[in-house]
Amino acid sequence: MTRKAERRHHDAVTTAPDHSADPAALIAALRAPAREAPVSGIVEIMKYGRARGGVMGLWAGEGDTPTPAFIVEAANRALAAGETFYTWQRGLPDLREALARYHTRLYGRTFSAEEFFITGSGMQAIQITLAMTATAGSEVIIPTPAWPNAAGATGLVGAHPVELPMTFGNAGWTLDMERMSAAVTDRTRVIVMVTPSNPTGWTASHDDLRAVLALARQRGLWIVADETYPRFWYGEGNRAPSFLDIMAPDDRILFVNTFSKNWCMTGWRMGWIMAHPSLGQVVENMIQYSTSGVAQFMQRAGVVALDRGEEFVAQQVARARASRDIACDILGKTGRCRFTPPQGAFYLFFAVDGEPDSEKLARRLVDEAQVGLAPGTAFGDGGKHFLRLCFAREPKQIRDACERIARVL
Amino acid sequence: MTRKAERRHHDAVTTAPDHSADPAALIAALRAPAREAPVSGIVEIMKYGRARGGVMGLWAGEGDTPTPAFIVEAANRALAAGETFYTWQRGLPDLREALARYHTRLYGRTFSAEEFFITGSGMQAIQITLAMTATAGSEVIIPTPAWPNAAGATGLVGAHPVELPMTFGNAGWTLDMERMSAAVTDRTRVIVMVTPSNPTGWTASHDDLRAVLALARQRGLWIVADETYPRFWYGEGNRAPSFLDIMAPDDRILFVNTFSKNWCMTGWRMGWIMAHPSLGQVVENMIQYSTSGVAQFMQRAGVVALDRGEEFVAQQVARARASRDIACDILGKTGRCRFTPPQGAFYLFFAVDGEPDSEKLARRLVDEAQVGLAPGTAFGDGGKHFLRLCFAREPKQIRDACERIARVL
Repeated sequence: MTRKAERRHHDAVTTAPDHSADPAALIAALRAPAREAPVSGIVEIMKYGRARGGVMGLWAGEGDTPTPAFIVEAANRALAAGETFYTWQRGLPDLREALARYHTRLYGRTFSAEEFFITGSGMQAIQITLAMTATAGSEVIIPTPAWPNAAGATGLVGAHPVELPMTFGNAGWTLDMERMSAAVTDRTRVIVMVTPSNPTGWTASHDDLRAVLALARQRGLWIVADETYPRFWYGEGNRAPSFLDIMAPDDRILFVNTFSKNWCMTGWRMGWIMAHPSLGQVVENMIQYSTSGVAQFMQRAGVVALDRGEEFVAQQVARARASRDIACDILGKTGRCRFTPPQGAFYLFFAVDGEPDSEKLARRLVDEAQVGLAPGTAFGDGGKHFLRLCFAREPKQIRDACERIARVL
Repeated sequence: MTRKAERRHHDAVTTAPDHSADPAALIAALRAPAREAPVSGIVEIMKYGRARGGVMGLWAGEGDTPTPAFIVEAANRALAAGETFYTWQRGLPDLREALARYHTRLYGRTFSAEEFFITGSGMQAIQITLAMTATAGSEVIIPTPAWPNAAGATGLVGAHPVELPMTFGNAGWTLDMERMSAAVTDRTRVIVMVTPSNPTGWTASHDDLRAVLALARQRGLWIVADETYPRFWYGEGNRAPSFLDIMAPDDRILFVNTFSKNWCMTGWRMGWIMAHPSLGQVVENMIQYSTSGVAQFMQRAGVVALDRGEEFVAQQVARARASRDIACDILGKTGRCRFTPPQGAFYLFFAVDGEPDSEKLARRLVDEAQVGLAPGTAFGDGGKHFLRLCFAREPKQIRDACERIARVL
């Protein structure tokens, strides 16, 4: 403590002993789950690359297309109309109805606005659903490689993330149901399923989904279903398989989603939860006591994205498919990259023979190829030797980036 | 379960027994703190009033002025410039610097951008600071009457809110330090101080603040300091007393704040935390795993609000002062209303002789005066016989509303 601070203490407090701490002690005085929350490994490499400059950053889960004008204009109109006041905690009725229409179109059965709840990002949807289900000290099973934030949010509610490493082999990534079943203990409360997967692009088949649901039913577990990427799907049909295709209405599944990927709205921080309407008041309370809702003028943009965004989404998906093929082709030809072409999402997750340290390799690629990739260590043990490349960009940019990577390798 | 749902279960699962629950069981399967989070008593009366229509709603903590154009335009410009991508978890450096400038002007000493962290609402600032400090099973002392959301957020992190009822007497509301000291147990981790107070308008003097800080130092407690309303201050000087005036740099105080009130930005959901820079990485992680930051285009509006909003704030405060005087005058003359003129914030918190049931009275005022007030039951035991009236409106509207209330009383 400085002398000046000491004097001020003395002025303020004459009877109490001085218990104020130095900065290191400030951290020590925090709640353990907060103190121990991990630093995001994706953010770390981004900081490294940004400090160098001139790097094509394919490390984050977003492309380089700003939100299209027809969506932005809806927010502009709402702002001009003075829609700057408090609004419904669960989200604008108009937006919840638009979500019901969107799901009805995409999943071929009827959805109700009462099933949808607007959140301040897909991340917040994950955080809220985990805070609804994962009791303190309980375990949450997360197949990895996985985007690290579900594990981070699990830790913050005082529960323990349990990694279930998926296997990478000749058949690509596989989810071993025997291992998942064996990972369930008396303390397990939740299984987090991200499909299509970020970062691997692995996408659960209906058989996979049925098996996970059967296990959840048998052991009384919740499923947090992160189905952010069903439109970015390179298999048959217009979307990836979903728990929605096989579940009963009263299964313990909470869906989390976001406007970020389909409509290039990453920076908006707007997502949604889909849940049984009977949980509506609980979800509302969770929103009330965390962010108290999402800006109305942003929600107006969401309505337009859902109702008028199909052509834009189709373009984005077609572009991602072309870029995916280019990335697979160029990196495949190096002869050093091991991967399986992603079935969904917009990431290529690949390992490089003779390069087991993905953090070191990611830094080298920043320095020598001027391309920024996320190291696999950011996604759990299951993928620590891999790198994640986001190909949600113009094919010629992806060609350029992959050729630069290939030259370095 | 419906017959159809049963059939679908049968299709999906042939070996596992059927453990899926009915909707009531879905709620029962949730984590207790989520299941038990209270419904906001303010939202309840708003729903009642909205269903009737034609009601002047003075129940919420906002006025009827939309965000001023010069602030909205900054968001529009950022949207037009394509600022729709992921951004810094801690907030835009520009906005953090603007906050440092704002605080330097207002508090008369130098602040650094490193002390500020942008959150998705003042509510999220409260939620994060409590999640940083209140361990599971610990106790959080909250003087009441108080805005209920700090207690709600306390419950959600698995801690227990401990109400410390303030006393209403001839001297207005008073905080009894002997009672506060007696309320501290071995499990206490945090004191939440809202000053100026929502709903009472009571404002801690420097002596009050010194006494609370001394107690916190003596017992090793954190203080979550909600200083949302210092500009809405009807005493001497240009702002209310603050912990910033008396603290040492390394005291365990986390400040929570919002853009909502000063700049009529309630609907934007944007706030900030001020904390010792040594806590920066922890705060960043808390943001990462809850909402992952705030929209960049909204933060641009925040910069303009802070740098160019002084004239607007001065107008708002002058208007609130005039409306406060009118409300105190009209309700005082009824001879039935008990209150002390608020020293700060923009609420009149009053009890009505012979009307102990504030929820019933609030509904009656909706029905008979077409004025919506928040019942004191929403603010804890300390104020359950009172009603909260928000006077952040044009004086003639407040005159009209108070005359209608006076007629009913």
